[in-house]
Amino acid sequence: MSVDGDEIKVKHGPDHPLSVGWTRSQIMTLFEEPGKPLTLESGGILRNVETEYETYGHLNDSASNVILVCHALTGDAHAAGWDLNPVGPLREFRKNKPGWWDSMIGPGKAIDTRRFFVVCVNVLGSCYGSTGPGSINPETGRPFGLAFPVVTVGDWARAQMELLTRLGVQRIYSVVGGSMGGQIGLELALAYPDRVASVIILSAGHRVTSQGLAFNAVGRHAILNDPNFLSGDYYGGPPPVAGLAVARMMAQITYLSEESLGYKFGRRLRGKDSPDFTLTGIEFEMESYLNHQAASFVRRYDANSYLYMTRAMDYYEAAEKWGGGDLTKTAERLKARTMVVSFSSDWLFPPELCRELVSAMCRAGRPVSYLNIPSRYGHDAFLVETEAVRRLITVFLKD
Amino acid sequence: MSVDGDEIKVKHGPDHPLSVGWTRSQIMTLFEEPGKPLTLESGGILRNVETEYETYGHLNDSASNVILVCHALTGDAHAAGWDLNPVGPLREFRKNKPGWWDSMIGPGKAIDTRRFFVVCVNVLGSCYGSTGPGSINPETGRPFGLAFPVVTVGDWARAQMELLTRLGVQRIYSVVGGSMGGQIGLELALAYPDRVASVIILSAGHRVTSQGLAFNAVGRHAILNDPNFLSGDYYGGPPPVAGLAVARMMAQITYLSEESLGYKFGRRLRGKDSPDFTLTGIEFEMESYLNHQAASFVRRYDANSYLYMTRAMDYYEAAEKWGGGDLTKTAERLKARTMVVSFSSDWLFPPELCRELVSAMCRAGRPVSYLNIPSRYGHDAFLVETEAVRRLITVFLKD
Repeated sequence: MSVDGDEIKVKHGPDHPLSVGWTRSQIMTLFEEPGKPLTLESGGILRNVETEYETYGHLNDSASNVILVCHALTGDAHAAGWDLNPVGPLREFRKNKPGWWDSMIGPGKAIDTRRFFVVCVNVLGSCYGSTGPGSINPETGRPFGLAFPVVTVGDWARAQMELLTRLGVQRIYSVVGGSMGGQIGLELALAYPDRVASVIILSAGHRVTSQGLAFNAVGRHAILNDPNFLSGDYYGGPPPVAGLAVARMMAQITYLSEESLGYKFGRRLRGKDSPDFTLTGIEFEMESYLNHQAASFVRRYDANSYLYMTRAMDYYEAAEKWGGGDLTKTAERLKARTMVVSFSSDWLFPPELCRELVSAMCRAGRPVSYLNIPSRYGHDAFLVETEAVRRLITVFLKD
Repeated sequence: MSVDGDEIKVKHGPDHPLSVGWTRSQIMTLFEEPGKPLTLESGGILRNVETEYETYGHLNDSASNVILVCHALTGDAHAAGWDLNPVGPLREFRKNKPGWWDSMIGPGKAIDTRRFFVVCVNVLGSCYGSTGPGSINPETGRPFGLAFPVVTVGDWARAQMELLTRLGVQRIYSVVGGSMGGQIGLELALAYPDRVASVIILSAGHRVTSQGLAFNAVGRHAILNDPNFLSGDYYGGPPPVAGLAVARMMAQITYLSEESLGYKFGRRLRGKDSPDFTLTGIEFEMESYLNHQAASFVRRYDANSYLYMTRAMDYYEAAEKWGGGDLTKTAERLKARTMVVSFSSDWLFPPELCRELVSAMCRAGRPVSYLNIPSRYGHDAFLVETEAVRRLITVFLKD
């Protein structure tokens, strides 16, 4: 069956031959053995770490056909197919849409589930199934809140590798991730050079930019200063949705480009020909869009998790961690065949930043392909430029 | 006396020969005649509009040596010299610093007060002296709050021209403004083509960008959703400082560039060699800077005014207003000799936007000079690149 881009862009149901079909997430409890807890980079300790994951396709006998897909900031383990039993705040959200990377994963798609066993793991600290600040703290019987220890990209890599080990996987054929997921992919390749054969890093780099760091700080500030935040101990009461909404609206701007914002909304007024001259009401489509994005987000995402996720992204600096600040020395650790993809209008993980990483890999003599795809979609491009990404992944995984 | 850039950058006191010395703002009540109120573009009506302004230098006999300086978003009429009697929240702020453009205005400086009569007017709706949402509403005897009518860039231009008329000025030698002040300068040249001989537009354009529109919307959202906001009726109680702080922090990021943020702060930790792994405390210098900026800002600026200022910037679209959407047709109105200056790393009013305006002026056959100054300082460059701006203004005003 030939799969062209247009066909893939069409959202198809679980019965479509290109779909992985109905999916059901699984939970694995890690670090449950007495005396073998997860000691985090922050010094915190976690035991009985519940880790939500989904798999698509079949593990072959040699366990050599594994593709690990890493999700982005507010993503989850439901990467493809249709959730058979969406629960809680996800019920509404997943009703009419397949997994977040359904365009890429399925029988006959770029990440072909007829060939690969695909695993996607929800990160620690998330609110989408894995243990996080909203989980019950066994020491108190109440939700952790901010008593949950700070987690890092390194911790995520370790937990995901632990889960794969339990599944009988020693060596990953390829790790694929965009944005925060790309950070995890890079970290896996650095931390486990002998267990990661290849890695695809989309719209991500070895660190966040200064602007990224700054916007994340403001987003957290908005949450921390929401009067409903109550030092993170808001479970059971009204959550700090006002602060979380502002954080999301701001982040949403950073996911798009000036051009895509202009193309989508520009200065168009919302349902009128001339402004109402209101300060409190909606004038522009842009405002309506941002409000809508925020309203939808706060229904499905936990503010505490947002704090943990953004902090982890901010802390990550591969060169500091692995090369004493030297990115070339860091790249020398790598053994994975690597592909880095940036998008021209991405200003959250801009092409220049990706090229820093790629240049270091070149200096270190490591096998790396790099492509900068012309796109107007900004950071979102890695999810939107389906056709370009599909071709690149298909060719890379063919080798 | 030769004035070089370095000398000007040194902050000098009121007794320095290059300083305009001690200053004292004045208030003029406009639109006070019965039956002649100010009818705003929003349809609102204001009477007895108090307008704060400062002047430096002396008006010549023919009233032909006037330079009108227009301030930016959160600016004021105190453009140069040392405030003799700072009041209210400005007392602390102005204690150790001269007016916001003291580097440019003074005897022997680029805007030479030995030659020019310089006027700077605080815009309507501000909290720095002119009538605004914090002023007493004569109909209720209490502060206007959101009962204050929406004001626009067009209204500001009209009020400033009215003030100059009262001062006996028929024709302005030059209007100079950066950012929002540049919008006012452009509007004055469009609305009063026969009364504006020349205009200098720094880091500004005929409209805000889509990103600018979006960030302003999020800033307002943060204020409007602060529980202390109380529909703008918070005077006498605690003001919505949390929302205003978030708006300011976010805006602050847009005033700088990725490069200047990286250069100033990058990923440097705040007073430590390794992170504390805290979600609620300060880890990075970046966070400390943003917090400090916000804390200082909320002490001196009124949240309601912030709503009015940003809305006015957002509404402004010179081509829609003057050319039925056609920027070339709009530029045909202009009679003023114009200089437009952009800065390479400014992404709030990026060079591309300035070039749209300049191209339209060229197509319309209007006299325009355009310079794009290489700078890493982002939008702030118009205040920071003192030496470059000084030279350009000096040459432009010499003609």
